[in-house]
Amino acid sequence: MATIRELAQYVGVSIATVSKVLNNQTGVSKETELLVLDAAKKLNYRPNLNARHLKTGTSKTLGIIAEDLTVFNTPDIIDGIGVCCESRSFHYILGNLRFDKLFGHESGNADQKNRLVLDMMDQMLSKQVDGIIYIGCHSHALTILSRNESTRFVCAYCYSEDPSIPAVIFDDREAAKKVTNLLLAKGHTKIGVVAGVKDSFHTNNRLFGIQESLYEHSVPYNPHFICYADWTRDQGYQCAAELLERGATAIFAMNDLMAMGVLDYCNQHGIEVGRDVALIGFDNREISSVCRPSLSTVALPLFEIGHTAASILLDMIENKEKTHPSRILLDCAIIERESTGFHSSLHQV
Amino acid sequence: MATIRELAQYVGVSIATVSKVLNNQTGVSKETELLVLDAAKKLNYRPNLNARHLKTGTSKTLGIIAEDLTVFNTPDIIDGIGVCCESRSFHYILGNLRFDKLFGHESGNADQKNRLVLDMMDQMLSKQVDGIIYIGCHSHALTILSRNESTRFVCAYCYSEDPSIPAVIFDDREAAKKVTNLLLAKGHTKIGVVAGVKDSFHTNNRLFGIQESLYEHSVPYNPHFICYADWTRDQGYQCAAELLERGATAIFAMNDLMAMGVLDYCNQHGIEVGRDVALIGFDNREISSVCRPSLSTVALPLFEIGHTAASILLDMIENKEKTHPSRILLDCAIIERESTGFHSSLHQV
Repeated sequence: MATIRELAQYVGVSIATVSKVLNNQTGVSKETELLVLDAAKKLNYRPNLNARHLKTGTSKTLGIIAEDLTVFNTPDIIDGIGVCCESRSFHYILGNLRFDKLFGHESGNADQKNRLVLDMMDQMLSKQVDGIIYIGCHSHALTILSRNESTRFVCAYCYSEDPSIPAVIFDDREAAKKVTNLLLAKGHTKIGVVAGVKDSFHTNNRLFGIQESLYEHSVPYNPHFICYADWTRDQGYQCAAELLERGATAIFAMNDLMAMGVLDYCNQHGIEVGRDVALIGFDNREISSVCRPSLSTVALPLFEIGHTAASILLDMIENKEKTHPSRILLDCAIIERESTGFHSSLHQV
Repeated sequence: MATIRELAQYVGVSIATVSKVLNNQTGVSKETELLVLDAAKKLNYRPNLNARHLKTGTSKTLGIIAEDLTVFNTPDIIDGIGVCCESRSFHYILGNLRFDKLFGHESGNADQKNRLVLDMMDQMLSKQVDGIIYIGCHSHALTILSRNESTRFVCAYCYSEDPSIPAVIFDDREAAKKVTNLLLAKGHTKIGVVAGVKDSFHTNNRLFGIQESLYEHSVPYNPHFICYADWTRDQGYQCAAELLERGATAIFAMNDLMAMGVLDYCNQHGIEVGRDVALIGFDNREISSVCRPSLSTVALPLFEIGHTAASILLDMIENKEKTHPSRILLDCAIIERESTGFHSSLHQV
């Protein structure tokens, strides 16, 4: 790999001239420019971007801090960040906190987690990143990030308690409203809900969306049709028993895993999902397209979350910041499959 | 964020003295050292690692080039790389080629792919990485990487045609041998195989392992029990019909998706998997634990592939290179679930 000095020697010009050509500056004849570019190609010259960035004061590099790279939402978000970065000639460094591997799904260990986040941020800043995107495993409030003089942050799939840090998340409320609209349109009014845990941001916003939809359709909201569960298949199974007992003709499970539990219950009790009862999940995990009957579900805009977060951060870095709400909510898509495909008139009210 | 100059002013010593302390060099009194470290903490000083690396000539940074970050194997491999890097104080930059997104599963477009790889390598080298780990979406031969004077490579989940580049992959042959041993131990001798496509590295090595196991158990190998398919569920379904027709009492599908097709066929034809017929897949995808009956399968050592690849590359960088075969084969684990759990003596020979 040639240095700039070797290039100058090869062409027979000064280092300053070579530097001008490589940095697109004026004051060099077209002929010399072509000679230098040709030599750079021949001698396999590569600019030392780290050296260049030291001079320009920007690294053209983002830091990505992922709570856990191996959780299903994260790779697609990074994919979106990467596409946005590439279109604007930025690179990124990835830091993986491994929270899911280290702590499981629990929400505790706040002190230890905060220390890991701060360490990772220090590492990123030592590498001179121009800004940081923080990707949550699930939507929760971060207490640790705060906007300060020197660091630009954007949250993806989570949000900061500091409203000055932009957060890009999906619109739980709107998604649940669309799900409820769909089930109402199919004639269901007794819609059972396998909700997530009670204190969850997701659970609460989705419940609100369900209530909104019912209200707009003048369908009374029955709180007995809400069964709280812990996002697991087993509790999905238990809630199915309860909700069907109470007369639900459709079930909205707030994740695909709990929907699988509902499916298990129905299969074991001779209830045909998609005909006797409608079922819809959330997340569009691989299992939802693979199970039988295939599961209608809600697809998360993961790529778009990453792309939007990166776009906002790059605007901040390049001082092209636009005004936008502190939380940017992206729309989810409803994917209809077999589990809501048929509808028995028997269960209509 | 304070500079080294501000630190020196604050403490009232020279920049050289501060630098000595921060770089753990001798020639500074213990008292001054403590003053400087204390000031660094107070003033929130962070070393500019890019500047330091310019001086030391190493960046302590690996490049990771992933063919596609969103393919199921890649996040866990990167997780393993990350853990190894952290334990040896290295960072990494991630480049995502997006091959699966851009080209689907096809193996064509070699020229375009090669250009993308070379561009990504150029970017990485411009960021002064000390070496590069290349992660394949699936195990295939890379024609494009070759060991050269200035760049150190290791392949993970794929291999280079240049044998001087170490490749860390899983042991297909040994895994298939273990699967066959298991089915033989359960009394099956008529083992149908839903193989992958014919020219695949995976297919061929696994077939060899199957043949080895049968030979060691003096069970004749019947080529009619091999049904080639294209890794999809539909073709798994079709092969199930063929293999069961020919009298297979156990089926080894070379991925979990094709095993799902076998499961579909059995469910639709009143054949109880796990009792009437044994079934085992490969890959340990999420679906394998979620389907009913749950699917026995082969778990890939993804974390270990990443960790081992990073360990080899870091040894090369730190001139502690050990001798090892050009292809490092890591063992897979068999995961027994319901689909091989019961065994009907009716089908024993």
